[in-house]
Amino acid sequence: MKKIAILGSTGSIGVNALDVVRRFRDKFEVIGLSAGRNIGLLREQALEFRPRIVSVADENEATNLRKELNNLGIQVGYGETGLIDVSTHPDVGILLSALVGAKGFLPTLKAISAGKDVALANKETLVVAGPIISREISRMNTRLLPVDSEHSAIWQCLQGAKKEDIRKLILTASGGPFLSRDLASFDSITVPQALAHPNWRMGRKITIDSATLMNKGLEMIEAHYLFDEPPEKLEVIIHPQSVIHSMVEFVDGSVLAQLGISDMRMPIQYALSYPERWKNDLPSVQLTEIRNLQFFEPDFKKFPCLRLAQEALQTGGTMTAVLNAANEIAVESFLTERIPFSGIQRIVEGAMEIHQVVSDPALEDVLEADRWARQHAGESVVQMQA
Amino acid sequence: MKKIAILGSTGSIGVNALDVVRRFRDKFEVIGLSAGRNIGLLREQALEFRPRIVSVADENEATNLRKELNNLGIQVGYGETGLIDVSTHPDVGILLSALVGAKGFLPTLKAISAGKDVALANKETLVVAGPIISREISRMNTRLLPVDSEHSAIWQCLQGAKKEDIRKLILTASGGPFLSRDLASFDSITVPQALAHPNWRMGRKITIDSATLMNKGLEMIEAHYLFDEPPEKLEVIIHPQSVIHSMVEFVDGSVLAQLGISDMRMPIQYALSYPERWKNDLPSVQLTEIRNLQFFEPDFKKFPCLRLAQEALQTGGTMTAVLNAANEIAVESFLTERIPFSGIQRIVEGAMEIHQVVSDPALEDVLEADRWARQHAGESVVQMQA
Repeated sequence: MKKIAILGSTGSIGVNALDVVRRFRDKFEVIGLSAGRNIGLLREQALEFRPRIVSVADENEATNLRKELNNLGIQVGYGETGLIDVSTHPDVGILLSALVGAKGFLPTLKAISAGKDVALANKETLVVAGPIISREISRMNTRLLPVDSEHSAIWQCLQGAKKEDIRKLILTASGGPFLSRDLASFDSITVPQALAHPNWRMGRKITIDSATLMNKGLEMIEAHYLFDEPPEKLEVIIHPQSVIHSMVEFVDGSVLAQLGISDMRMPIQYALSYPERWKNDLPSVQLTEIRNLQFFEPDFKKFPCLRLAQEALQTGGTMTAVLNAANEIAVESFLTERIPFSGIQRIVEGAMEIHQVVSDPALEDVLEADRWARQHAGESVVQMQA
Repeated sequence: MKKIAILGSTGSIGVNALDVVRRFRDKFEVIGLSAGRNIGLLREQALEFRPRIVSVADENEATNLRKELNNLGIQVGYGETGLIDVSTHPDVGILLSALVGAKGFLPTLKAISAGKDVALANKETLVVAGPIISREISRMNTRLLPVDSEHSAIWQCLQGAKKEDIRKLILTASGGPFLSRDLASFDSITVPQALAHPNWRMGRKITIDSATLMNKGLEMIEAHYLFDEPPEKLEVIIHPQSVIHSMVEFVDGSVLAQLGISDMRMPIQYALSYPERWKNDLPSVQLTEIRNLQFFEPDFKKFPCLRLAQEALQTGGTMTAVLNAANEIAVESFLTERIPFSGIQRIVEGAMEIHQVVSDPALEDVLEADRWARQHAGESVVQMQA
């Protein structure tokens, strides 16, 4: 029996994860759930899965929900403390960390320190504080299980392989909605256009990150920490069909690739079933219907965010936290139509240019870099609007 | 140190295998080599690799060669006895079985009975007598290591996997030179056209088998015995670029694929280095240069040999030996321009139609089925010419 808590249970990953739980009801006990503002869905989930604890963003919402759920023996918390109470609840065996953005970091770190295995969908946790998480994982001897489809693919390709056999990790990228759009027209990109991802239905933040290719850059940083491979062994290749989810090239030239449909329930299930594979009835990938798989080099001119992420990874230290924080502010500002699409890159680059890197950061350094970058990016947004 | 013997050292697989040995000279000791009629090349190989024993097809050639090689302490044999002396030499640890056709069967079986591991490039061994080989492998507790690129691919995808996790094995086929040729013009196919394989440089017999897709059928039978999976779990998919060498679909819908350049040194090296991977300087597969991977359903109307092989696999017993023997005669007759390309299928089907299957065959039943099918096919060739 897997005793699971889910941070971000009403988001795209959370909802898919609970569908996996529903399909394998006898294999799971749901201990905790957390949501932000989607209280209605959280209530439904709580009634269906009967966790011991839930958490929401707002204190008033928590008070209202408590009246209803306390009768069922369900504890209700809120805010960061609520998230940590969910992620570290003594009954939790495995935490699915599926919050969006850097706010997922602390509750995830606390879960590791409490000895929980972590299925990681919140890549920002590693982008912001990879070295700290890695140290804590090895100190506590817990497991970090990839949930992103790309990292799940690499992880699956590495089963039965030795670390010294790896020549490189090849992350595939769909290229997003603007793969073949002319760079000259990038300034007129609208929010609905950027949200129209060709292959994957995901949350708004990650969908914009996919349109700028920042998402792939964040995934390179994530891969660096998950698989402990240096930046020069990480490669990105554009593959518009998203059928090959990623690949590993070995020292003898052989390449293993993992393929599947574009359905997050697949990598979520693998992370939760690992080291087993559970039979399901999700559709198989139909190569003879898709017929064509294409591959291109990424275009760094059109997608400078990918280059910025690679630079941040090379620089290391607090620079990846700055990249991430500035990007979160910039994406939010684009989504609320305060800056143009191309402004995202400029805001991130601006923060990176003047950041004073701390090379071997402690937790406080990381949190301070995150705070500083948010403030700097916020100011840049205001200037850009002026 | 791997103590290796190679049956068929002057053939395409043998030459590639010796190049692998040359690249990893400190990891191998060459114990034995065998050739058919290419005495010149065998002499060169013997002088370079200094085996303890060699064998050739013809007694007179052996006598001549003996004068030269005995001085170097190299024993020289001939014929079937010579092959078996090579494959069972007491110093051999691993046999690379790379003869063409059913004549590879007995020396391979004897090697297994003598406790040798076998790297199998001679698929006919399993097609002719899969159950007998499988029994002997498990009795002697030796290893059968795939060398065919397709089976090597599946084997690599299965590292770290459990048998119960397999949903199906998917063999890729290039489709050969006649993939897009109109069926109406199949009767005018010439030998040079059939020998012009688009992706792989191989021996003449296997190249014709690739043009009829019989090769893929034989590989299905081989896969059945190598991986102990039932016919209904084996699938063939046309993939003209031969970049994905084969795939495994797991019960959770996830697919692993192995990719590489079309160079037999890759799967040969993997079979010989297993369970290690050895770093080499062969070129990597360049997906962004290839750019497109295509997939189609096989066309059983144009390539009835694939259907015949599937039927033989379903029927089992001595039927696969009959399929193979009749095909060997038919291919030889096509190569010597005695029958047309489409005659290959008719000769194989003719033998299968009237063969009395022995369901759980002993060695003698298999050898008798092979003998009978060759005779029947030979007679059909004569009738076809009349």
